[in-house]
Amino acid sequence: MSSVGTPDPSSAWLSDEELAEVRRRIPLLYVEAVPVRVDGMGVVTSVRVLLRANPAGEITGTLVSGRVMFGETLRDALFRHLEKDLGAMAFPLLPTSPVPFQVAEYFPIPGLSAYVDERQHAVALAFVVPVTGTCEPRTDALELTWMTPAEASSPAVHAEMEGGRGTLLRAALASVGVLG
Amino acid sequence: MSSVGTPDPSSAWLSDEELAEVRRRIPLLYVEAVPVRVDGMGVVTSVRVLLRANPAGEITGTLVSGRVMFGETLRDALFRHLEKDLGAMAFPLLPTSPVPFQVAEYFPIPGLSAYVDERQHAVALAFVVPVTGTCEPRTDALELTWMTPAEASSPAVHAEMEGGRGTLLRAALASVGVLG
Amino acid sequence: MSSVGTPDPSSAWLSDEELAEVRRRIPLLYVEAVPVRVDGMGVVTSVRVLLRANPAGEITGTLVSGRVMFGETLRDALFRHLEKDLGAMAFPLLPTSPVPFQVAEYFPIPGLSAYVDERQHAVALAFVVPVTGTCEPRTDALELTWMTPAEASSPAVHAEMEGGRGTLLRAALASVGVLG
Amino acid sequence: MSSVGTPDPSSAWLSDEELAEVRRRIPLLYVEAVPVRVDGMGVVTSVRVLLRANPAGEITGTLVSGRVMFGETLRDALFRHLEKDLGAMAFPLLPTSPVPFQVAEYFPIPGLSAYVDERQHAVALAFVVPVTGTCEPRTDALELTWMTPAEASSPAVHAEMEGGRGTLLRAALASVGVLG
Repeated sequence: MSSVGTPDPSSAWLSDEELAEVRRRIPLLYVEAVPVRVDGMGVVTSVRVLLRANPAGEITGTLVSGRVMFGETLRDALFRHLEKDLGAMAFPLLPTSPVPFQVAEYFPIPGLSAYVDERQHAVALAFVVPVTGTCEPRTDALELTWMTPAEASSPAVHAEMEGGRGTLLRAALASVGVLG
Repeated sequence: MSSVGTPDPSSAWLSDEELAEVRRRIPLLYVEAVPVRVDGMGVVTSVRVLLRANPAGEITGTLVSGRVMFGETLRDALFRHLEKDLGAMAFPLLPTSPVPFQVAEYFPIPGLSAYVDERQHAVALAFVVPVTGTCEPRTDALELTWMTPAEASSPAVHAEMEGGRGTLLRAALASVGVLG
Repeated sequence: MSSVGTPDPSSAWLSDEELAEVRRRIPLLYVEAVPVRVDGMGVVTSVRVLLRANPAGEITGTLVSGRVMFGETLRDALFRHLEKDLGAMAFPLLPTSPVPFQVAEYFPIPGLSAYVDERQHAVALAFVVPVTGTCEPRTDALELTWMTPAEASSPAVHAEMEGGRGTLLRAALASVGVLG
Repeated sequence: MSSVGTPDPSSAWLSDEELAEVRRRIPLLYVEAVPVRVDGMGVVTSVRVLLRANPAGEITGTLVSGRVMFGETLRDALFRHLEKDLGAMAFPLLPTSPVPFQVAEYFPIPGLSAYVDERQHAVALAFVVPVTGTCEPRTDALELTWMTPAEASSPAVHAEMEGGRGTLLRAALASVGVLG
């Protein structure tokens, strides 16, 4: 669910072979984050989407996403993946509640849900996370874009998000009352 | 639901007589806030309860609470009542989502719900609000107390909260995963 | 928020003049419901929208919506308005939780939020409500339509919902994981 | 998180050795359900707790709980475990929303969260599920008890729930507005 062509740092507790094997046997637990900026009243004013080229050369958008490791709390996993994708100066405000705004079920085969991940069955707990600092793009990113909620609500953005994350992005916007 | 012996600044748009009349005719909309401190990972580490003496001389605990005015957004009402009760230096982080963790229905007569307000039928949208600054007690307060989640979960605190707000406080703690 | 040209049965506790006066002074509390059908696994399979002609002769869509009366619980208000709009044989399954999926703030002037109600400042607690029986259209309705979640997610439906309820409908679909 | 001394039917996709190995390497995804009865208005009137003897001979209470299998949706897993624990005639009303009322993080070592599972790191998505039929106790159960919300809120029940599920039970009661 994170990088496609590069080694996955979140597989540290399993060798690549072991992870590949586990991926065919049990659902993996993920966290996802929709980074946002808020004004002084808590209203979401912009949403961050990461653009990159997929192996087919198409530009796709994605969210902050990654696996929860053995022994790691959801908050620790969220923080680790936010830092990995946005840099150490993003200063995210982690949620006070462990309840996600949405649960996204990714299956290898399309049609079981709105979400698809060819590699695995993954269940992601998704959170809206305000960031207060400066975000840096990841090395594999073409661009790191801030969009207004209206832009992020558009069919064009919905279509270019990978694995069904356009639906998750809309659910995030709806949960904070700014879906266009 | 706010101050007992002092004029209520939230009744500015209605005279006292008019407000008294309206209170017998329609439910009034309130916001309530449970101010908390969080650590760097978003975990709630303490909860603020305001202690004061009620007209009968008993010490009771309460939360930040007040009416929503005509033309005022829920966020504006939350901010106004937080500032009134905690001072201008509390620096609250207002919620990104307008969905409350709980809705408390206060009725003049006990038994219809867990919440009672002798003066009126009020429906309060309740939010957990992290504060990052310094809180000052209100003029009518005996004390402004920070409690650990475990202390705030205790039967003793539950019993001394006014109008059923012990139940609301527990629901707040449960919503952020720290109810003891 | 309910019918425009017809007497409002929910104003029983206030005369029309009194209600008109109150509407200019304080925010009114509403409940709204998005009626849905679910399959045996709880998945929403269709959504009900009520179509009617507004005073300008345009066809608009709306949801079940109405005021909370003095002394009435939110559940009682929800049930009353569901019965009024869908008939006595709809057999709604009221929510176990009093927490709405969204709070819609209607203001007389556009721009303060996504929701507009020319008559008043109203704050509506909105719920997704499965119905298990047969729904009958209201007397002022042109048609009572069941749509699939995909149809209900479309820009066309979004545009024809009155007062910004297209946004509320999308938020409802997102909250149950079926927004297209 | 399910039965202790009996074979676990939810491990079908992995041999016992494989599951034991996986349990030391990655967090496992669980669903939990708090079965309730509701009245005609959706108010929770009773809560079901399963009592059984643990290997030490102590009576402990538990909830419906079990693993999510590869390729299985959360709803399918919920339904399967409800049927296994309550019998085929319980007729549960599965939630319309996939968002849990709480996420419980079970760690093998106490202190990281309110929840402990000596066997593994498990993350459980917990749902309140109304049942409309007849519940039968599981074969390994001493008793299947229906409690009022007030009884289920008591410190005694809280203390005898296994693995910290007293906290989860309270959070369930709070989420539906009936925590005592």
